[in-house]
Formats: sequence, C-alpha cells, structure tokens
Amino acid sequence: MKILDALPERVSIYEVSPRDGLQNEAAQVATHAKVRLIEALVRSGLRRIEVTSFVSPKWVPQMADADQVAHMATPPEDVRFSALVPNGRGLERARAANLGEVAVFLSASGTHNLKNVNKTVEQTLRAFDRVIEPAVAAGVRVRGYVSTVWGCPYEGEVATSESLRLAKTLLARGCYQVSLGDTIGVGTPLQTRAILDVMLAEIPAEKLAMHMHDTRGTALANVLVGLSMGITTFDAAVGGLGGCPYAPGAAGNLATEDLVYCLQGMGIETGVDLEQLWQAGQVAEALVGRKLPGKVHVAGVRSLAH
Amino acid sequence: MKILDALPERVSIYEVSPRDGLQNEAAQVATHAKVRLIEALVRSGLRRIEVTSFVSPKWVPQMADADQVAHMATPPEDVRFSALVPNGRGLERARAANLGEVAVFLSASGTHNLKNVNKTVEQTLRAFDRVIEPAVAAGVRVRGYVSTVWGCPYEGEVATSESLRLAKTLLARGCYQVSLGDTIGVGTPLQTRAILDVMLAEIPAEKLAMHMHDTRGTALANVLVGLSMGITTFDAAVGGLGGCPYAPGAAGNLATEDLVYCLQGMGIETGVDLEQLWQAGQVAEALVGRKLPGKVHVAGVRSLAH
Repeated sequence: MKILDALPERVSIYEVSPRDGLQNEAAQVATHAKVRLIEALVRSGLRRIEVTSFVSPKWVPQMADADQVAHMATPPEDVRFSALVPNGRGLERARAANLGEVAVFLSASGTHNLKNVNKTVEQTLRAFDRVIEPAVAAGVRVRGYVSTVWGCPYEGEVATSESLRLAKTLLARGCYQVSLGDTIGVGTPLQTRAILDVMLAEIPAEKLAMHMHDTRGTALANVLVGLSMGITTFDAAVGGLGGCPYAPGAAGNLATEDLVYCLQGMGIETGVDLEQLWQAGQVAEALVGRKLPGKVHVAGVRSLAH
Repeated sequence: MKILDALPERVSIYEVSPRDGLQNEAAQVATHAKVRLIEALVRSGLRRIEVTSFVSPKWVPQMADADQVAHMATPPEDVRFSALVPNGRGLERARAANLGEVAVFLSASGTHNLKNVNKTVEQTLRAFDRVIEPAVAAGVRVRGYVSTVWGCPYEGEVATSESLRLAKTLLARGCYQVSLGDTIGVGTPLQTRAILDVMLAEIPAEKLAMHMHDTRGTALANVLVGLSMGITTFDAAVGGLGGCPYAPGAAGNLATEDLVYCLQGMGIETGVDLEQLWQAGQVAEALVGRKLPGKVHVAGVRSLAH
C-alpha cells in the first residue's frame, strides 16, 4: 500500500471562525458584522458552523452578544449552526435561540482545563450533567471538544490515554462526535499517527474530528495523516482567524481556504466553493481589522494560467 | 503498511534564503548584511547553502554583489556553499570565488523558461554546455533545478514527462542532484505522489530534491509525501523568505524553521539547531525590513511547558 492510497471521497468541514476565531480578538466586533461573516460562510457552501459561545461575558467579552448573533443568523435547511456551551445556563440560552446543536469543551491537561474554565476536569464533566444529557433529551445534538491532545502550554506532553478516556466519556454520554484539538499547534505527523492509533483502536473514525492549529505550520501535514487514517471531519477557520494567546501574532486555526484548496487538489469533495470562501475571508479580515495569516487568503484564488 | 512507515533517519536541507529568498526583495540589502545572514545560517548547523546568483545585475540587481558575497563568506570545512550560474561567465565568476558547487536552472514550462531567462528550453540546455561539463571537469559539483514541475503561472498544468526528460538530461550531463520546484506553490499531495511516481521510476531518490513554495500552505504536506517516498533533500528558506512575483505579499519558500520543527518532531535528524535557526530568521527579517511569514518564525521556539 502506498501513501494516500485510501483517501475518503468526501470531507466535512466544521467551521469555527465566528467562535474560536473571534473569541481572542482584541477588536470589538459588531454583532451585525458577525452575522455578515456567518452569512458569507454559508454562501461559500460550509454546512457546519460554530456561530458563537454562550459563556459568561465576564470571561469572554467578545461573545457578550451570543444571544443576538444566534437569533439573527438563521441557518438554511441543510446547514447546522452550533454554539459552545459550558453549563446549564448556556444550554438554556442556546435552546432559546433555537440552535439544533451545541458543543461542550474540556482539556486533556488538568492545568489547562483549570486555567481555561476554572474547574478541574472532573468538575467540568459534572457540569456537563446539565448540558449533554438534557440537550440530547431535548433533541439537540451535542459535539465534544477535547483540547491540548497534542500538548499543553503548561504541562508539555499530554497522555493520550487521558484524551482517549475523555473522548470515550463524552461519546458514551451522548456526544455525536468528539473533536481532538491541537490547541497550541505543536503537533507533528508521527505524533498524530500515534494519537490516532490509540483513539481509533476504540472509537470509530466518524465519531472523531481533528481541530488543528497552525501555529508551527504543521496543521495540514497532520490533517493528511488523519485523512489517510480515516478521519473525515476537520475543524478550520476562514483566513486562519484565531490567534494563540500563548504566542502573540502567531497563526491560529488551520485556515479553511488552505484546507479546501488542498482537499480539492486531491479530488476530495467538501461542498465548498473556494472563491466564495475567499470572499468570506475578506469579510473576516475587514471585521477584525488586521491581516489574517491564511496562505490562500493572502495569495488569492485567481485562476493560475492566464 | 501504514502511512509514514518508512521514513528516513536523516534529511539534508538545502538552504536557499540568500539567493532564492533575496532575489525578489525590493529592499537593497547591503553585502555585509548578506554575509551576516549566511554566517548565522552556518551557525544553525545548515550544511548546504546557496549563497548568491551569478546572473547579470541588469536582470537581478539584488545579486549585483555576488562576487563580493561569495568572496567574503567562507564556508567551514563541512559546509558547502553554492551559487546559481546561468552561463559560462557565471561559472568563471563562481570559480574565481572558489565555490565548490554551482547550480543551473531551467523550467519545465517553455513559456516560464522564456520569460525567466529569455531563452527556449533547448537554448538553455545548450547554454549549459559552458557550465555543466566544464564545471564537472574542474571538480566543481553541479546541482540542477527544474522549476514549475507542479504548475506554471502561464501554462497551467505542466507535463511531468517533460520534467522527467529535463531532470534525466541534467543528471546525464553531470548534475549530482536535481531539485524539482513547485515554483508557484500550487502543489497538493496526490499530485506530488503522481509526480514522484513518474520520477522515481527512472531516477534514484537520492538524486532528487524537492523545492516547494508555500504559497497555498501545502509545502509541508507535500514534503511529507516526498519523505514517505524516499526523498531526503528538501530546499527551504529561513523565515519563509522569498516572495512570489505572481502574488504580491504571498508566502515564498517553505520556511526552514517549519521544516526543521516538523522533521525534529518526527525524530528525523537534520543537524540543525532550531533555536539558532530561529535567530538566523531574525537576522533575515531585519535585513529585508519586513515581517517574514514562516510560522515557527512568528510563533517562536521557546520551550512549551513552563
């Protein structure tokens, strides 16, 4: 068997720019501008978009308008909007906004979890009692995030056995999919293979997603490993929106345009129109008022042969 | 066999920043500053560096000081400096500077070759009569470049059969290695596999190198394919120096730091100290007076766990 012999025909992209992309931005982004970004993302053909986060505005001021964003942005029939939800209050707000999907998050690194949500991992899992099961009971799909799977800014290496335990716990409790996060963008390809070997021994590939940050330029190489091992959902953010709080100015999420460009080049369907997606990246850039780092975003998508 | 089952233990990096990196820079870079960059690259552990280009200053003003650069920068015992040489006059200059290696270049796309050196491909091959054979006869190693292998800004797709023909011709005439270039950074992984399948059917892997531009973020993913197929020499430029004349502001060469970070993470030896290499990237950035796009360059190389 040769490298890349068993690629999927189709990949599902889970777009996180309105949430993971914006949450660390210093610029105050107007609510209507966020809605404009979401609409541009929908126009590009993206079918799964995380539109906001129902966290306390005290923690993440950028998401203080979560209710308005979720109310104003209405998904077309075939599009699913989701929102990050840390607790029961968040779920109520998501349901009030008629969201059909929510996402819960925790970290495989205890220290990172504590610094991120001020709870231990076990306390976080208990807080999900008022999110996962009630959401599922109410017909709301729940997605899980396990972050710092590839490494932690505080603890360094993270045991994959702990990531596996958390992913299995979230799935057992009702999450339809768990997204494994390289939160600080340290992952390299053999590490990705090793992590996925452990995960896929106990979890079907379609229940997993990869959420790679491109802080050190390795996101797409890691995606390639995931693809070849059967992963078919990848998180990304248009323009590479989303900084890394630990490395000011550094690249954030894998840029959706780069991902789509690479997949298209391999004949893998995404349902996304790259030209329209590039336009959405222009909207995102205008919105945050700084240059975004995505490579295709910068290079453009003009036809190559004149 | 699983993905990445047969990786090399060691990779050789061919650093092109002083030449390919600088040749399109608008800023006038002082000769002593170029020498400082070369010295910083040597300190990082890089052992193959293309230090300048003996083209006419009328074509590439940035390289008008090629003779001085080559004279001032003296390689340690175990380091090889090389320079681009388009013709017999260039070879004379390279020999006068005591360079032990030169590089010749042509394009697999006729239109690109014509626009680049104002000669047809066959005229270019004839001009090499006064470079390759005389150099080899004088004990000077010759490296070949075949560019636009992954695509041409004028012609679009390029026939791999033509790239193969040119690579074989250069090797038959005495080049010790041919570097295949994705000059405009359009390559994607399955394309890379297809190109290398054709190449490796007739050329041993150690006679080939890959020279990938990161214009659309795919360089490292393509390198991963090359690695898994036996390629062990990769060209790169510190900081991702080197723009793309067809896409202003777009990323240029694969950043050496990103390549080294990824290889180190896979346990593949490069002989390069990443911290020192990052310092060389700071020298490069100061030299051109603009922010460089390399991801590790921007993110830094501080230890992750505090």
